[in-house]
Amino acid sequence: MDDTFNSALSVQEGIEQPSEVNPYLTKRQPKRELTADECVEGILRGDRVVLSRAITLIESTKPEHYAKGQEVIERCLPHSGNSIRIGITGVPGAGKSTFIESFGTYLTTQGHKVAVLAIDPSSERSKGSILGDKTRMESLSVNPKAFIRPTPSGLTLGGVARKTRETIILCEAAGFDTILVETVGVGQSETIVKSMTDFFLLLLIAGAGDELQGIKRGIMEMADAIVITKADGDNQLKAQQARNQYQSVINLFPANDNGWQVPVTTCSVYDQSSIIAVSNLINRFAEETRANGFFHLQRNQQLVKSFYEWIDFSIKSRFYENTEVKQLIEKLLPQIQSGHITPYQAGHQILENH
Amino acid sequence: MDDTFNSALSVQEGIEQPSEVNPYLTKRQPKRELTADECVEGILRGDRVVLSRAITLIESTKPEHYAKGQEVIERCLPHSGNSIRIGITGVPGAGKSTFIESFGTYLTTQGHKVAVLAIDPSSERSKGSILGDKTRMESLSVNPKAFIRPTPSGLTLGGVARKTRETIILCEAAGFDTILVETVGVGQSETIVKSMTDFFLLLLIAGAGDELQGIKRGIMEMADAIVITKADGDNQLKAQQARNQYQSVINLFPANDNGWQVPVTTCSVYDQSSIIAVSNLINRFAEETRANGFFHLQRNQQLVKSFYEWIDFSIKSRFYENTEVKQLIEKLLPQIQSGHITPYQAGHQILENH
Repeated sequence: MDDTFNSALSVQEGIEQPSEVNPYLTKRQPKRELTADECVEGILRGDRVVLSRAITLIESTKPEHYAKGQEVIERCLPHSGNSIRIGITGVPGAGKSTFIESFGTYLTTQGHKVAVLAIDPSSERSKGSILGDKTRMESLSVNPKAFIRPTPSGLTLGGVARKTRETIILCEAAGFDTILVETVGVGQSETIVKSMTDFFLLLLIAGAGDELQGIKRGIMEMADAIVITKADGDNQLKAQQARNQYQSVINLFPANDNGWQVPVTTCSVYDQSSIIAVSNLINRFAEETRANGFFHLQRNQQLVKSFYEWIDFSIKSRFYENTEVKQLIEKLLPQIQSGHITPYQAGHQILENH
Repeated sequence: MDDTFNSALSVQEGIEQPSEVNPYLTKRQPKRELTADECVEGILRGDRVVLSRAITLIESTKPEHYAKGQEVIERCLPHSGNSIRIGITGVPGAGKSTFIESFGTYLTTQGHKVAVLAIDPSSERSKGSILGDKTRMESLSVNPKAFIRPTPSGLTLGGVARKTRETIILCEAAGFDTILVETVGVGQSETIVKSMTDFFLLLLIAGAGDELQGIKRGIMEMADAIVITKADGDNQLKAQQARNQYQSVINLFPANDNGWQVPVTTCSVYDQSSIIAVSNLINRFAEETRANGFFHLQRNQQLVKSFYEWIDFSIKSRFYENTEVKQLIEKLLPQIQSGHITPYQAGHQILENH
């Protein structure tokens, strides 16, 4: 199953780079676009070069790529879903890349095929942290059982979410059984990652006193497990103390409706057993929630939710992008703010004719 | 200013009751509908009978009442806004009604005019807790400087929010300078109350051990102050301990962007000084946030937010209530859930022609 990954070519190209920043890829990249058939066949036999190019296709904003991209997704759908999707977020300094490098490598030694995707809302501006991804996970990026894909760039937050969900489908169809979706940056992307993953991992570090400081409100409550990283050397005791503190805060939260008790554990990339422990607890989560039906239920809910979210988003964009609507809003907002009309009166005026 | 409230009639009718449950009101209620002029004039001179009837008018779902109701609101708007709007929520058993009774009565002794409104999403089913409101606040309900209005019934959550915002405008125009908006029931209504008030008060009681148990996630983070009620008799020490525990949890939250340090205090309706202390801290909040601009900024943001929320809600209802859309969704949802099409493919199908 993994023999398709053994050539140096595949390994290199597994890390998709836009052609303008990777001269090697430019030389090798064939001019001809792959057909939908070629994409699907390549993906299903686990060819990472084809997978990369198919992802590029669905990320394309060119109208002529749209139908083909959707056909590829549709034909991959029946082969998708057989995976665990793990969301990973962390406070700055928690060593997220180092953790993923170590955790992902361990998973590949256990026979898993690991895809690492990233959700980075800031990529809208910065055009993605592509070089970052390459240098951040040196050993995983050349691991034949791993596939690292930077966040799609030049999209809105909603667009990033959609493309990442579609990328997950293609990766799963290509045989990747463990999907790691990491947040890049802090703040906006956690909810999105949570909405497309089965398990949500929060990486924290031992701080100085005010342990909750700096974690965005609500993120702790999303977590299915909290891992205090860098629990090594002089830091070990502090990490253990932080673990206890977080555990007592977590215990104050109401119980989850899936029956899962959120564990707080410490971890060091220098201690393989602590990495194994994280893997084991995720396995236990998957087993338990598959048995009690929550795993399937959550995926179903995520599908339905993203359907409605997408419709809501689309009808809103359609409405607010209407030129007359824009002008009316511009005219009415100051009147609302100065208290001359109520928000409802203004709303009625706009909706009457649009 | 308060002389209009001195007749027993006004006092009685200040508590608006649907005519079917209050035989006295039925006898007195004139057949003729008030004109918009009569409504506005009555409200501006602080006539609570007229205020009550004007609120009934804007709560009416009859189309013929709509334009008149909106005219009344529009003409009251320039006279509104001069108040502090205080949201009050509490865990079951915290004695919210008793607190409001005591707190509201104290405010009236200080020369304030106090309106008590309620947001009760369950009123959609139960048709409001009208009898509850009457019996819950016995002394406040006959206080000439207070006006108690039950939650509008028979509306959706969004409708309740809108009508309550409009009711606030009328109450302020009638000279009420303190608006208490209480949540009835637990769960859904806190966000709505928060979105229309300047200050959000959370009432808690000393529990047994797991102090955070039972408080919905996120509600503690909305609070501008937390009051541990029933801090009297044998309960005093426990209340103090709970106070300390909550204060330490609150201290772990990131600082508010308005510069306000959320205080946690204890309170007993048998100890007037503790009620005064709550009033003082709200005054301090109002002073500080008026000085630093947050008070005005928050009100402005609330107006703009409710404007967009209302439009979003309206365009969504319009879309989803379309019969063809309904049928398509019914057809496509099972295909999404079974993994035959993606949420986006289904969405596209629906939006193409609608």
